[in-house]
Amino acid sequence: MDRAEGRVTAAVLIIGDEILSGRTQDTNLGDIARYLAVHGVDLAEARTVPDVMEEIVAAVNALRARYDYLITTGGIGPTHDDITADAIAAAFGVALHEHPEIIAIMTRRWPEADITPARRRMARVPEGGELVKNPVQGPPGFMIDNVFVLAGVPTIMRGMLEDVGWRLKGGAVVVSRTVRVEGSGEGVIAAPLEAVAKAHPTMSLGSYPFFGPDGYGSSLVLRGRDPDEVAATVGQLISALKAAGIDNAQEISA
Amino acid sequence: MDRAEGRVTAAVLIIGDEILSGRTQDTNLGDIARYLAVHGVDLAEARTVPDVMEEIVAAVNALRARYDYLITTGGIGPTHDDITADAIAAAFGVALHEHPEIIAIMTRRWPEADITPARRRMARVPEGGELVKNPVQGPPGFMIDNVFVLAGVPTIMRGMLEDVGWRLKGGAVVVSRTVRVEGSGEGVIAAPLEAVAKAHPTMSLGSYPFFGPDGYGSSLVLRGRDPDEVAATVGQLISALKAAGIDNAQEISA
Repeated sequence: MDRAEGRVTAAVLIIGDEILSGRTQDTNLGDIARYLAVHGVDLAEARTVPDVMEEIVAAVNALRARYDYLITTGGIGPTHDDITADAIAAAFGVALHEHPEIIAIMTRRWPEADITPARRRMARVPEGGELVKNPVQGPPGFMIDNVFVLAGVPTIMRGMLEDVGWRLKGGAVVVSRTVRVEGSGEGVIAAPLEAVAKAHPTMSLGSYPFFGPDGYGSSLVLRGRDPDEVAATVGQLISALKAAGIDNAQEISA
Repeated sequence: MDRAEGRVTAAVLIIGDEILSGRTQDTNLGDIARYLAVHGVDLAEARTVPDVMEEIVAAVNALRARYDYLITTGGIGPTHDDITADAIAAAFGVALHEHPEIIAIMTRRWPEADITPARRRMARVPEGGELVKNPVQGPPGFMIDNVFVLAGVPTIMRGMLEDVGWRLKGGAVVVSRTVRVEGSGEGVIAAPLEAVAKAHPTMSLGSYPFFGPDGYGSSLVLRGRDPDEVAATVGQLISALKAAGIDNAQEISA
């Protein structure tokens, strides 16, 4: 880990009794750490707390004050023990409201009668919060100030991360672009990705797999200091993927 | 998680840059959580910090004051970045000394010339510390007051845990049962689950969704200290789910 002055730091807060009981093995911490590194952000601390309001609030306030960013995972589902949105609102001293975009998403998906009180819970976002897209399934996450609130289910969490990176002001690394591949696993992606990475030794290329409605896919993140080189590499990567039989790779951010 | 008064609590402190960089996947947290549960101790919080003296000292002092026990993992090897023993000594305001039993273990294993300064580092224990046996490989861990200092390598950590349990004064053991629902999302499960949870305020009921080949489902975990109440609640939950139109709920563990 870089201890240099001027580095950009983040913390992760894992929320959930199931991690602390040993019932569920957390894998989100490592995924987030690697994603942040590609964006020039150092993960400096992580905490795991139970589904208890005052514990979540205390940890959120300690970590968001101390680090440039805080990413939380877990507790945004529809059941009574999903209290992360409430806790974030309490930590910021703001109210929760039903976000009209989330209600609109639900209205497109379900008939009115199926938008139960439990589902409406998932539409609640603290005042001032912006949505973080969920490309996988279910309602979006949100961000408020320097805090990103993501799902706990790893496939969904990784999908949401795609909408986090472009908002981060990273440290040493300056330019980041993302190429998305759907329907292909990392086993197929690895060889062309590695070939392109080897041709650009000063750049950083990472693969962040997700599992969505159309099966496996991956976000390929390219970072470098030279914007022209990064732009050229995006094209080279898409060509290399096509040569390997993957013809739906496309850039999702620039 | 049981919020009852009188419960015995512990925290885990994971020490190591490699966890925060995403290079190594931690598995010790879950192993410790399950081990503690068997001894009637609830894991209440976990933190991960880098190999930085002041970060370790601050976390040790915060966690050992707040919980009945603290278990640390990592940073007790022979290299210059293994500073956990130094940090524990600093946190307690005591000196480090070379523990004669560890030197004796080393002397039995290696000729004098092989007991290098790096290996001697691993013999250092804070004044007042007792050894925690290492049945696997390498030097022991140690405990001081309510803090257990264990290795980071999972096989060694698990071996050391064997010498921890008999020292714990546990509370009542928590009984856990799981009801599995397939093909229904949390939006449908939430209302019956909440109703049953409200009827059993000293128990903990959680929903842990999964996404499998047959679509979404959820594991509903019921935890409590009274085995009869937990058993009765399993039946009540299955009935409440059936009344909500979910007829495939069944217990998967007893």
